[in-house]
Amino acid sequence: VHLSSLSADAVELGQFRHYMQKEIFEQPQALAQTLEIIAGGGSVTPQLFGARAPEVLDGVRRVLVLACGTSYHAGLVARYWLESVAKLPCTVEIASEYRYRDSVPDPDTLVVVISQSGETADTLAALKHALAQGMQRTLAICNVPESAIVREASLRFITRAGPEIGVASTKAFTTQLAALALLTLTLAKLGGRLPAEDEAHHLQNLRHLPVAVQKVLELEPAIERWAQRFAGKQHALFLGRGSHWPIAMEGALKLKEISYIHAEAYAAGELKHGPLALVDKNMPVIAVAPANRLLEKLKSNLQEVRARGGELYVFADAGSEIAESEGVHILQLPEHYGMLSPVLHVVPLQLLSYHAALVKGTDVDKPRNLAKSVTVE
Amino acid sequence: VHLSSLSADAVELGQFRHYMQKEIFEQPQALAQTLEIIAGGGSVTPQLFGARAPEVLDGVRRVLVLACGTSYHAGLVARYWLESVAKLPCTVEIASEYRYRDSVPDPDTLVVVISQSGETADTLAALKHALAQGMQRTLAICNVPESAIVREASLRFITRAGPEIGVASTKAFTTQLAALALLTLTLAKLGGRLPAEDEAHHLQNLRHLPVAVQKVLELEPAIERWAQRFAGKQHALFLGRGSHWPIAMEGALKLKEISYIHAEAYAAGELKHGPLALVDKNMPVIAVAPANRLLEKLKSNLQEVRARGGELYVFADAGSEIAESEGVHILQLPEHYGMLSPVLHVVPLQLLSYHAALVKGTDVDKPRNLAKSVTVE
Repeated sequence: VHLSSLSADAVELGQFRHYMQKEIFEQPQALAQTLEIIAGGGSVTPQLFGARAPEVLDGVRRVLVLACGTSYHAGLVARYWLESVAKLPCTVEIASEYRYRDSVPDPDTLVVVISQSGETADTLAALKHALAQGMQRTLAICNVPESAIVREASLRFITRAGPEIGVASTKAFTTQLAALALLTLTLAKLGGRLPAEDEAHHLQNLRHLPVAVQKVLELEPAIERWAQRFAGKQHALFLGRGSHWPIAMEGALKLKEISYIHAEAYAAGELKHGPLALVDKNMPVIAVAPANRLLEKLKSNLQEVRARGGELYVFADAGSEIAESEGVHILQLPEHYGMLSPVLHVVPLQLLSYHAALVKGTDVDKPRNLAKSVTVE
Repeated sequence: VHLSSLSADAVELGQFRHYMQKEIFEQPQALAQTLEIIAGGGSVTPQLFGARAPEVLDGVRRVLVLACGTSYHAGLVARYWLESVAKLPCTVEIASEYRYRDSVPDPDTLVVVISQSGETADTLAALKHALAQGMQRTLAICNVPESAIVREASLRFITRAGPEIGVASTKAFTTQLAALALLTLTLAKLGGRLPAEDEAHHLQNLRHLPVAVQKVLELEPAIERWAQRFAGKQHALFLGRGSHWPIAMEGALKLKEISYIHAEAYAAGELKHGPLALVDKNMPVIAVAPANRLLEKLKSNLQEVRARGGELYVFADAGSEIAESEGVHILQLPEHYGMLSPVLHVVPLQLLSYHAALVKGTDVDKPRNLAKSVTVE
């Protein structure tokens, strides 16, 4: 394991109580640094991913993302982006599953491995497994430039989140999403599927992203009040649809990791196929509700939950027109942020788990049973 | 909605307390009926899937499975089979997600839709969405021949499970797996990837499947004793790897549906990436432990759970050499059953959820909040 050289600033707590809180609030800066490469007049080019990128990305017809834990959730979000914007079929798989099963290799597939530390044992092994099967187009998205996974891949994108100390990953996740958004745009452009106007629009949203995240962070006091009600619960259900389903998964994982509340995420459309049986007044339901074309569907899911006595906590975009009422709590985010909306929506879920853990008094930065980098299988 | 003509026999409870129990015990017969088509000297041919099958299956290069709930889990098992045996890349997606997102259509992909009733609204809509995008190679796997999904697809395989009354699906699931095993072998044979010797071996195992399931059903009294310990729990974690990961998912879903215990499944390799934080003495962990090449990996996951005080309930194949000890309970299944092992391993999980629900006194056949066929979105 190699260590990055850290500035003293980056590892001191300053005004924050925990590294996790500090890292949540560093996200605007982490995103700005990660996206510096397109600041000002920059545009998307294959070279963002390394000198060999024009050659490696040429002729890519599919994408396979391999990762674990939070990084796996980043990959799941990217799948929606890649298929919608770049029109490339994408599969996302848990690294420990991929490495041990018989799969069908395809030399025209770009293998993307994602790992904050770049040392995740299963992800590294999955990358080697893909290589051994003749899949030579590989890209590492990591936060540590000298790491094993970065050294093994032909292309790399280094997120510039700075050192992440808290075991529960936060700024690494959002900067991974920024990297994957750049990858989506790059592949779309290479495939002739990104008109100049769309590119300009997406780049503008990416450049504005740090400011947009900063705005969401202002919700902290309201989320703190929600966390008070939450912390006594044994269970929670997180619902989302489309590219916000993996955000619901990430919100549930965060709550599990640091507050030990048994939180589980479901694609909202699956509610009626089983988990609705669990819903009663003891099971709070958290809904990720961006103001997109799926909002009406999600609203009808929420009515089902409410009809069974479940208390609802809804993170809605401005203009979503979901009304507060008994048992229905709404927190309003800024206006819908298009493709990048998942980056905004994960932030209040990070804050919710952080504050629920504070109320419970758990060891936020070092939750029981977990290690920061899973460097063993 | 069309109704199948039912014989009186099939809908009477007879010696059983609930339809769910009856349907669990009908699985040998349901499998025998579903597999009658290959009984005796029969072999796998495209015609198993309808008259147009030779033409529709010719040139298939990928498989996309669309389904909800339990049927989705059947598809997830089949993915491991299709990639390993037929060497066809396979994607499995929740129908409600697929129908609403931008995906990349591919005319050489076989779209497989799975639904017990054949009326599941999201699955039907997903099938129509695929068709509208030019994906004309479609196969319905359903238990009701006159259903909307069957009418819409170009190929069909009708499972002959008989009417399923209990809301929690059991015999529909195992017969779907039998259908998917036949599909795997058929596609492997068409692709020149099924040597005659392998075909004979797989067919023999399929023909023996009803007897093998019967043997597993004999575990009921032991499982009943486990259920006594279980029913007081608020939570449960189900672990599996490879093709048995979806079996863990199905076991967790069953427990959720009818006993209202918050059960969640994880790919065992993901344990260290989050859910291990939940494990303490109040969180029983159920492991699906077939005696395959992943057993050693699973054993090391089990040690991690045990080290954190979690009580383990392990369903192991004969010869797995996992020893009973304090906090480690073992139930032994017959010898490892190769590719079809998931069919055997789901049965004790069905029995566990049934008996846990009995102890809790819930309405087994009509769990709260759920409907048998989800014919609305």
